[in-house]
Amino acid sequence: MKKLTTLLISFLVIFIVSRLWLPSNLKRRNILSLSSDKDQPANFWFKSKIDHFNEIPQHPLDPLTLEEINRVRAILFSYQPFSSTNFPAIHSLTLDEPYKSQVLGWKKGDPIPARKAFVIALLNGKSHLVTVDLGLGRVTRHEISPSSGYPMLSLDDMAKALEAAVSFPELNQSIGARGVAFSDLICITPSAGWYGPDEEGRRVIKVICFSSGNTSNYFMRPIEGLVMTVDPDKREVVKFTDSGRAIPLPRAANTDYRYSAQEKPPEMRPLNPISMEQPNGPSFSVEDGHVVKWANWEFHLKADQRAGLVISRARVWDSETGELRNVMYKGFASEFFVPYMDLDESWYFKTYMDVGEFGIGVAASPLVPLNDCPQYSYYMDGVFVTSDAKPYIQPNMICIFERYAGDIIWRHSETLLPGFQINEARRKVTLVARMAATVGNYDYIFDWEFQTDGLIQVKVGLSGMLMVKGTPHENVETMANHEEVSSPLVSENLIGVVHDHFVTFHLDVDIDGPNNSFAKVNLVKEESLPGESPRKSYLKAKRHIAKTENDAKIKLNLHNPSEFHVVNPSRRSRLGNPTGYKLVPGRTAASLLDLFDPPQIRSAFTNNQIWVTPYNRKEQWAGGLLTYQSKGDDTLAAWSERNRPIENKDIVLWYTMGFHHIPCQEDFPIMPTVTSSFDLKPVNFFELNPVLRIPPAFDHDLPVCRPSNGNYRDT
Amino acid sequence: MKKLTTLLISFLVIFIVSRLWLPSNLKRRNILSLSSDKDQPANFWFKSKIDHFNEIPQHPLDPLTLEEINRVRAILFSYQPFSSTNFPAIHSLTLDEPYKSQVLGWKKGDPIPARKAFVIALLNGKSHLVTVDLGLGRVTRHEISPSSGYPMLSLDDMAKALEAAVSFPELNQSIGARGVAFSDLICITPSAGWYGPDEEGRRVIKVICFSSGNTSNYFMRPIEGLVMTVDPDKREVVKFTDSGRAIPLPRAANTDYRYSAQEKPPEMRPLNPISMEQPNGPSFSVEDGHVVKWANWEFHLKADQRAGLVISRARVWDSETGELRNVMYKGFASEFFVPYMDLDESWYFKTYMDVGEFGIGVAASPLVPLNDCPQYSYYMDGVFVTSDAKPYIQPNMICIFERYAGDIIWRHSETLLPGFQINEARRKVTLVARMAATVGNYDYIFDWEFQTDGLIQVKVGLSGMLMVKGTPHENVETMANHEEVSSPLVSENLIGVVHDHFVTFHLDVDIDGPNNSFAKVNLVKEESLPGESPRKSYLKAKRHIAKTENDAKIKLNLHNPSEFHVVNPSRRSRLGNPTGYKLVPGRTAASLLDLFDPPQIRSAFTNNQIWVTPYNRKEQWAGGLLTYQSKGDDTLAAWSERNRPIENKDIVLWYTMGFHHIPCQEDFPIMPTVTSSFDLKPVNFFELNPVLRIPPAFDHDLPVCRPSNGNYRDT
Repeated sequence: MKKLTTLLISFLVIFIVSRLWLPSNLKRRNILSLSSDKDQPANFWFKSKIDHFNEIPQHPLDPLTLEEINRVRAILFSYQPFSSTNFPAIHSLTLDEPYKSQVLGWKKGDPIPARKAFVIALLNGKSHLVTVDLGLGRVTRHEISPSSGYPMLSLDDMAKALEAAVSFPELNQSIGARGVAFSDLICITPSAGWYGPDEEGRRVIKVICFSSGNTSNYFMRPIEGLVMTVDPDKREVVKFTDSGRAIPLPRAANTDYRYSAQEKPPEMRPLNPISMEQPNGPSFSVEDGHVVKWANWEFHLKADQRAGLVISRARVWDSETGELRNVMYKGFASEFFVPYMDLDESWYFKTYMDVGEFGIGVAASPLVPLNDCPQYSYYMDGVFVTSDAKPYIQPNMICIFERYAGDIIWRHSETLLPGFQINEARRKVTLVARMAATVGNYDYIFDWEFQTDGLIQVKVGLSGMLMVKGTPHENVETMANHEEVSSPLVSENLIGVVHDHFVTFHLDVDIDGPNNSFAKVNLVKEESLPGESPRKSYLKAKRHIAKTENDAKIKLNLHNPSEFHVVNPSRRSRLGNPTGYKLVPGRTAASLLDLFDPPQIRSAFTNNQIWVTPYNRKEQWAGGLLTYQSKGDDTLAAWSERNRPIENKDIVLWYTMGFHHIPCQEDFPIMPTVTSSFDLKPVNFFELNPVLRIPPAFDHDLPVCRPSNGNYRDT
Repeated sequence: MKKLTTLLISFLVIFIVSRLWLPSNLKRRNILSLSSDKDQPANFWFKSKIDHFNEIPQHPLDPLTLEEINRVRAILFSYQPFSSTNFPAIHSLTLDEPYKSQVLGWKKGDPIPARKAFVIALLNGKSHLVTVDLGLGRVTRHEISPSSGYPMLSLDDMAKALEAAVSFPELNQSIGARGVAFSDLICITPSAGWYGPDEEGRRVIKVICFSSGNTSNYFMRPIEGLVMTVDPDKREVVKFTDSGRAIPLPRAANTDYRYSAQEKPPEMRPLNPISMEQPNGPSFSVEDGHVVKWANWEFHLKADQRAGLVISRARVWDSETGELRNVMYKGFASEFFVPYMDLDESWYFKTYMDVGEFGIGVAASPLVPLNDCPQYSYYMDGVFVTSDAKPYIQPNMICIFERYAGDIIWRHSETLLPGFQINEARRKVTLVARMAATVGNYDYIFDWEFQTDGLIQVKVGLSGMLMVKGTPHENVETMANHEEVSSPLVSENLIGVVHDHFVTFHLDVDIDGPNNSFAKVNLVKEESLPGESPRKSYLKAKRHIAKTENDAKIKLNLHNPSEFHVVNPSRRSRLGNPTGYKLVPGRTAASLLDLFDPPQIRSAFTNNQIWVTPYNRKEQWAGGLLTYQSKGDDTLAAWSERNRPIENKDIVLWYTMGFHHIPCQEDFPIMPTVTSSFDLKPVNFFELNPVLRIPPAFDHDLPVCRPSNGNYRDT
């Protein structure tokens, strides 16, 4: 691999410029990117790709436009409590969504409700929560948050922390002693967590470093034991620890993952081209840039700086009545919790809450056409805000595509009917909305998949690279007690630290309207009475409506199973069943950490797999609005302690998907995607299954294709 | 729907003829079907579709050919203990697979080991186990089984039971009183289970009936409370129960599922054609009719009358060394357990073990091209045997296809490297081997999916129709205590009985050879010492090698998690890790029935989710070789009571996948597919991840397609 010789200072400049496109260069860069050749085929079928520079919001939930953000900025600059010399750092500036009743009452053609921005700004260590009314042209609400945490780190914070760290003299000595050239140094900024009073009262960021010598995959070359605690506001290194000089820098061999860097092909038969083809174009439309319509589904889709991808107002057509029925008001990834299992000074703090600490919209990657998303995808941008309140575009951060994977949504064969044999099968064709966030080494892939039978499947894929740790060992034989470890050996001088991933979803399910109840349907063994039956036992499904939050704090148990329904007690099927959807967990994991461990206190929203809360506009973020260095006083777990009534109310369902990760050699030097999912599935919502009347595929509808350099089979 | 007027007797004839193609008409029907227009495009790309009439076995594991079966038949007919007047009914006649050492020692070009048939035959109520050596041309082993059960029911048994049932006078009275025309009567033959001494010492089959009046979906029109217990050998009705005359026959409206019977389209936007296209052809080959080669995988695939689909000798290329390494000697669905939760006389016995009672190969459906399997699929037939030892062909019962579903097998974006930005993503392309079995109302879809990263995912999909029960109720309001039921109302006069599905897989995993160990890697919380760290707790992975079977009886627990590794203690990676694969369970369910309930005793193999046994040629069928009416004396649970040593031995892993099914209205009148899966995943098997060097897809490789009635985009 070509030696990287650029100096770190130039890297910092590139880093800032590449991530923080300012509106001035934005106008050049993104107009170009929006109309580039590469982009053109991707959105070939769609007429409604947003022109960000002339955008007018069309839906109450549409994100703030470039123009609106610039107006908010102007209003803030002329807002008296602030001043140009003492202007706060903007850590979040997003649409202050209208009240739910306003959104539910709105229909296309109506004027959209007053546009407001909700701003989280930091000034002199205080978090200011500011609402700007764009119609009135002024700040309408302003308070200083009393809660323990700080807002999401800004890219500016990270740049300041890196700047302070790399100019710290001991750093240079340390890497020199380890033989790492300054030009190969790459540092990143993990969050500090909260570990008691030592680091309270000021913001701190950790800085850890790697060598990019001879590989693009610097994550595999950690400078172990070197960690700095940096105050980004004072731009000073608060603490410098260098305990790992005896640990060799892991070798770079076989770590570069770029296709262009591979020297030989893999030992496998080559694969012929394969693709999902739709020569008539996809069957979905994206209206006004955000409203997706496909088959029996309609929903609003947008990019969010913090949550990444937000689905709103998901509605499904009733196949019998043609009515468009409410299923979910809003669904998104509310918080992550990613604790690593290592007590070392340079590792203990790695207990990330990426949504609230960094924002997974900020971390979103531009999706790679053809490889991240198939052909015929529609790409949607994010419009986000820098710490000086300027808008920028996160291009191609969401894709939407139709999927046919060879699966069967329903089939039956019948041989018993006299006179004819039946073989009926229907293909499973679905719609996927996808984003991918690169949070340092890890890449998180989010899929929201909509099915014609009314099911929504939410998938999280984990890919990218493992966060590894240096070790003197090159073979397990030299490791004492290697059968009981927190960090298995994954390559020479590299151990993979055991860790968990938890992703907590906010699911504001509104089945046929806001007022719903949560029903836990327990499967319980019953014993037969003596002489009643040749059978000794059977199961009963016992439905229990949760009255308050405590009734709906669920720890999943394979041996004491339940179904979890959200039902509308006021709307009944023709048989008298309440209409509903059920949450169906998939493969998952639970946190095993001590409940009083600081990271578990902060992420106490993972103490249960399911929670139900009454709807509250302020309760969107499971780890608290201000997550960074928070003490856990504003989490889902804290809110739920009030044990509020939840029966026949507007309720929100929270589901945490978990993964335990015990690393192995296959996690080196890259990690193939590990996926889990959960379903939202109709239960007595439809009078009968909507798949019944869906047609099969016919040969005569198939596209006719030829290889890129070959002939058509039919010619 | 056209009224079905054919008489039941003609139905029986058609039933027998359509299922039991005799060699004489077989030669006409199947030669035709093998070369029909319909079949031609499906196997267009493959040269090796077997000519069953000229087939010569090429691999030690190839199933018996038509010619071999006919020779076995001739040998049995001239075998002295039998006679033509007292010839046994053949319930199973399959390849007696060579010893594992012979198969492992064989390589292409070697002569194949002696061909033998293993025959299970029933004569005068005794089960004869007979081995026929085709080379020697004689029976080499013959014993009468002492175990409690009977062989799989033959189609002949079912036909006899139906014949006895429909000619039973009370049946005619009963359906007449209910207003069901004899011409609309459809009866099926559920297995009887085993419920104590009353039904011992003779074979019995239950017969229950439905009306096909005005619908093809007769399952939705049960004649409730009518059940017959029939002795198929004596062709007599042993017991007749008719307790449900007060229960109305459910209406037929909205039940017909045939596309041709739908009167209006569904209320949804129509979907444009979408398909997976490979105009250069698929990348896999099927050599000698059974050996599948794709990417880094090779395996032997065959149809089996009992297990359905059998994967053998799955081997993967090591991407670093080019070596073809052993992963799995044999994998298949060994047994089902499907208990319904109803004590009624006409329901209590519904506790199916479909693999051993009926055979899911026998029940396999011919796959519907384009809808059951995508284009570019290869279709494989089964060659099975009738109860008079004649071969017949189960056409197109397995398909093999390559899949690209828009998924990402690995991705990473990198913005921190000076001078360039990296966005790398690799598409997930896989190979699927699929079959579907229609066991009465239920359709089971089995997918074995092979990935380039070395992972094998095994999926089971449940589709078809619900087994429903008649009820006088039309609305839940009239049902007492409807919050605690075993059978929710799913349509007027129809309740869906709660039931479970368990599928137990036999996984003879051989990692780099037969001698393996089973390691349970427990994740355990450790507390930090006072002052050791700001953290209070962390997790350790503690590896425990199972010494005996009891160490490896696993009840999964979310709150006490483990990984489950099969490792080869004699083969180490360069780091000293034993090479291995892990079993990764997916969404599953456990049986809650009383351990001493007769069905749970018979299906005690579901008492744990995972078991490990030492390899034993005779221990293939988790529910016992002779399952029908068995008492549970020959199950996996019984074998494992010996608590045999399993460390560093040839071991077999057993995994049970479970589903609880609480029916709802969406299960009426058809059930969209519900899927679960588990993975076999490499763990320290590869030195590094084989995906590293796999290329991305390129635009220039994409096929060029036009709509079937349109123009190409590039012309």
